[in-house]
Amino acid sequence: MSAGEFELINHYLKPAPDEMLPDSVLLGIGDDAALVRPAADQSLVVAADTLVAGVHFPADAEAALIAQRSLRVNLSDMAAMGAEPKWFTLSLTLPGEWEAEFRRQWVAGFSHALKRCAQAFDCVLIGGDTSRGPLAIGIQMLGQVPAAQALRRDGAEPGDFVLVTGCLGDAAAALTLLDGDRRDAAAEYLRERYYKPSPRIAEGVLLRDIASSAQDISDGLLADLEHICRASDVAAELDLAQLPLSPALAALPEAEALRYASAGGDDYELVFTVAEDNMPQLAMLQAEGRIQATVIGRIVSGAGVHCEWRGKPYQSSITGYRHF
Amino acid sequence: MSAGEFELINHYLKPAPDEMLPDSVLLGIGDDAALVRPAADQSLVVAADTLVAGVHFPADAEAALIAQRSLRVNLSDMAAMGAEPKWFTLSLTLPGEWEAEFRRQWVAGFSHALKRCAQAFDCVLIGGDTSRGPLAIGIQMLGQVPAAQALRRDGAEPGDFVLVTGCLGDAAAALTLLDGDRRDAAAEYLRERYYKPSPRIAEGVLLRDIASSAQDISDGLLADLEHICRASDVAAELDLAQLPLSPALAALPEAEALRYASAGGDDYELVFTVAEDNMPQLAMLQAEGRIQATVIGRIVSGAGVHCEWRGKPYQSSITGYRHF
Repeated sequence: MSAGEFELINHYLKPAPDEMLPDSVLLGIGDDAALVRPAADQSLVVAADTLVAGVHFPADAEAALIAQRSLRVNLSDMAAMGAEPKWFTLSLTLPGEWEAEFRRQWVAGFSHALKRCAQAFDCVLIGGDTSRGPLAIGIQMLGQVPAAQALRRDGAEPGDFVLVTGCLGDAAAALTLLDGDRRDAAAEYLRERYYKPSPRIAEGVLLRDIASSAQDISDGLLADLEHICRASDVAAELDLAQLPLSPALAALPEAEALRYASAGGDDYELVFTVAEDNMPQLAMLQAEGRIQATVIGRIVSGAGVHCEWRGKPYQSSITGYRHF
Repeated sequence: MSAGEFELINHYLKPAPDEMLPDSVLLGIGDDAALVRPAADQSLVVAADTLVAGVHFPADAEAALIAQRSLRVNLSDMAAMGAEPKWFTLSLTLPGEWEAEFRRQWVAGFSHALKRCAQAFDCVLIGGDTSRGPLAIGIQMLGQVPAAQALRRDGAEPGDFVLVTGCLGDAAAALTLLDGDRRDAAAEYLRERYYKPSPRIAEGVLLRDIASSAQDISDGLLADLEHICRASDVAAELDLAQLPLSPALAALPEAEALRYASAGGDDYELVFTVAEDNMPQLAMLQAEGRIQATVIGRIVSGAGVHCEWRGKPYQSSITGYRHF
């Protein structure tokens, strides 16, 4: 990798002398490539997602929030596979026209937040590069999962229940607020849900033995569940009245809340399927407070995602959620 | 990863029904992340490099050439570690203002060249994403190397010889031609060296047991050798008259050729060090035609890279090579 400005990132992100790199990292930032030691009995899980200013986040958002969102979006891909995150690289593109002092402060704020977030999710930056250009953050995330236990999209079977973690629609609702100046508690909650989505790593690990399929909700529940249906060659029937809504979302006009929850993206909750036989196991985890999940429908034979709301078919008005 | 336009890439890049994915790929493009099986006795080698239009290549370059260069630059990081490339992800940012038909043709040309290049170097695309924005190609490359045999920057010792593979300066000379319309054989050769640098994978593997340190030349010989010296806490003494030059470069005015060869980047040859005891082994490989390498100096104690040309100290006029 080419050094350049990456030395600045390295300065902020490299472990202090009294911090230890995990044993799995044989060689971190600073050589042509990093060397890590994968566990012998696990599969390596590999994902890459780039966030572009003005497309995936507002260009003037705080550096710390951009860092949080970039890392969490990529961590969510690990959650969706039932994997534990281990290592990541960062490709950071920074505008050439930024003044030196602004750039320094931006990189410091970004790096500090990235490091704290990485520590919280037990993963470590091992390399990357910086380029000049329009602001963009590319992250490549590496994780591990026992070979046969990965959560895939192609395992749903007719009769399976369809569930989601957490609650839906908050991030989409937040997008309508990002330009405004609402600063009440509900608005703050929604903003936080957009910038700091909760990658469901712990839930993904628990679901390894329980779920027949899973994926994270980045493009919207209906679009993402459609991916599961297509990969598994099945259909889904949903009762939209069951969609879990936060108090902030439930306070919005009903049709608007429903639209955000069913078709809004960026929540990074998991949508997953569970065979009837495994539902008692899931119920036990819920009773223990280890996972929060809501049944929203069933898998049937056929194709597509079919929704009902208050006894009538519901036609989503949004097809293909568009990000910010 | 978010699907979006990546389905278009996938269309061009996914194996045909009669092509097999390598055994090491358990799950390729199409889920939230890819699943691969690393070899139990090897370290995983991880590098990421982003190429931005107008910075790392001319914005109007052919899609196929951009694909070649992007992949080869990343493969070179593997070569510099003595690693064999295995899998990679692609984060492709395409301008939103491109017309649909142009975009389709561009992606087809890019994908076709990327696939051919990946096949030639025995690595496979396993995932990624596409975004809208200024043209940029981010690649994360994963490779493998036996744990203790990785080529690092920090192993050079006083007394070691300094060597380079191939010949130097061609890519920097090519940059002066990219805007022009010279189409003679020498110009074509230089352009090819810029767009299709040869990642020295086979050489890196051979050097695992021979070299004490190595790195690829992306920022220029002097800058990159300086990295080795700093990491190894040694100095280097070079005789610039020994730098290997191609006929095309040797045809240029002497001072210009020397400047390109010593300070020009983008060649992606390897600079490496070899202890005197290992030189016979290297000589044997050279005699067998398995590696082409030239001695250009020695490692001494101290700091920095010191150059001599025709018996006089040579001061590089370029510090920190600037890419296109």
